[in-house]
Amino acid sequence: MSVVASTDSRLASGLAAIQSEVDAAFDALLPVPDDTRGRLVEAMRYAAIGGGKRVRPLLLSATADLFGVDRTAAVQAGCAIEAIHVYSLIHDDLPCMDDDDLRHGKPTLHKHFDEATAVLAGDSLHALAFEILSDEAIYGDPFVRAELVATLANASGMNGMAGGQMMDMEADHAAYDLHAITRLQQLKTGALLAASVEMGAILGKVPIEGRANLRAYARDIGLAFQIADDLLDHEGDETKAGKALRKDDEQGKQTFVTLMGPDGARDQAKALVEQATARLSSFGDDAALLCDLARYIVERDR
Amino acid sequence: MSVVASTDSRLASGLAAIQSEVDAAFDALLPVPDDTRGRLVEAMRYAAIGGGKRVRPLLLSATADLFGVDRTAAVQAGCAIEAIHVYSLIHDDLPCMDDDDLRHGKPTLHKHFDEATAVLAGDSLHALAFEILSDEAIYGDPFVRAELVATLANASGMNGMAGGQMMDMEADHAAYDLHAITRLQQLKTGALLAASVEMGAILGKVPIEGRANLRAYARDIGLAFQIADDLLDHEGDETKAGKALRKDDEQGKQTFVTLMGPDGARDQAKALVEQATARLSSFGDDAALLCDLARYIVERDR
Repeated sequence: MSVVASTDSRLASGLAAIQSEVDAAFDALLPVPDDTRGRLVEAMRYAAIGGGKRVRPLLLSATADLFGVDRTAAVQAGCAIEAIHVYSLIHDDLPCMDDDDLRHGKPTLHKHFDEATAVLAGDSLHALAFEILSDEAIYGDPFVRAELVATLANASGMNGMAGGQMMDMEADHAAYDLHAITRLQQLKTGALLAASVEMGAILGKVPIEGRANLRAYARDIGLAFQIADDLLDHEGDETKAGKALRKDDEQGKQTFVTLMGPDGARDQAKALVEQATARLSSFGDDAALLCDLARYIVERDR
Repeated sequence: MSVVASTDSRLASGLAAIQSEVDAAFDALLPVPDDTRGRLVEAMRYAAIGGGKRVRPLLLSATADLFGVDRTAAVQAGCAIEAIHVYSLIHDDLPCMDDDDLRHGKPTLHKHFDEATAVLAGDSLHALAFEILSDEAIYGDPFVRAELVATLANASGMNGMAGGQMMDMEADHAAYDLHAITRLQQLKTGALLAASVEMGAILGKVPIEGRANLRAYARDIGLAFQIADDLLDHEGDETKAGKALRKDDEQGKQTFVTLMGPDGARDQAKALVEQATARLSSFGDDAALLCDLARYIVERDR
């Protein structure tokens, strides 16, 4: 199903808007210098501009919209979280990691450039995320800047995405059950999705005690997202996905699909989406885009 | 020359103190979790604890001491900058980068663990640096936290260390002259050394207009540090250095030594150290440790 056919035009226009805003922001953040760093910045641009669905920036900006946050601040913070996501894809695709040749329908960074450049471009995007968040001109309140950094650093490090990636790499030696797979995915995928919502709330200056429903929504869709990813790997279309699929099956890996069966996994993902949207009922129509996004997350074909 | 013989006991005790404080802080920051992330955290500990000279944390804490900064805050910030330094060494040592087998006299991380773990451990230490700096309990003032993050992110990314590393990788295709090599090293090595001093000044709440002499000192010793590194690569002792040397010569790379000759390079390094220490004259005896450190930087044998 295409985005437009399966969801309403609100989501389609929300995605189109954030995609073009994030691309424009990365373009401005990554001018190619007139020295031998040129290759590095070209590589960063190759990975960061175009191609991505921008689910995380949309999650962030749709949350920020609930609280009337300035659009530029939300888009820049969206770029920060996307820079982390993109760097993680670059490093995950490396030969010593998942050894992937295709990403977003084009050659992976290390195939198009080389491995050393891929390592460095990933590292530079990682640093860029924190450079973006410490821009005084965009986030005047230093408390906001510091809280954004704390949230993103925690979500990406050993207690977040990188920790989940390690658990994933250890899957061969560990007989993970559903509980363990859930924990793994909460770190590997869930932490950054949750951080997207959290950063929107931080920009909205929502006090911690007011974030419970948003956090619950983020937790639910994080899990639904990964179940959908496992289903996509199991039964998706490689051309639409723009990357190699059937990798879990080939490696004999435990996933939500192997543990629950395709139908059980699909039912669980849908139930999580229903639960997630119910969490936002107090926001009424203002949360319509976040609800659309929750549904899109399980219906997407890439 | 050993540290103790070539410099006074003030420097020796300053180095010994910060080495043990940084090791203890990393030990506390990196508890091994009781799940399959254990291997990742063990790898981070392998690289971060023990072995390093801790020049950057000492630069930071000695600068912070000029302004009566709380010791815990200075040591934690020292760990943040050291986490960046250590992650960069892990990634630089990878087969696709410098392909080094030895670091601090022991096998490099990817040799002792594996390449994928080395990529992830580097990434996790990168994130850890920003987790450390956003610890509200240590840096109560959010402006200080935000300024520390901005300084470190900028020094480590494409306009700092990573950018310099890319310029270094491009050296084969580029006929660098002394001006270009100086620029390259200002980014590759100088940026993080300068950030160490800057972060000490930030902790000391020194306004930007009061940092000129400290910045000039940092610039001078950054350059001296790299000249000393090139001399060490050219004529040092591998056992003392704990890593492979003579790599620049083998690769036919342009360095300060090839461009200025060993004697010219040595004279230049010494002149820079004299200039650097003169920058600190207004601090009087309070800056004695920073002056010792400047001299140590060119006299070290590893």
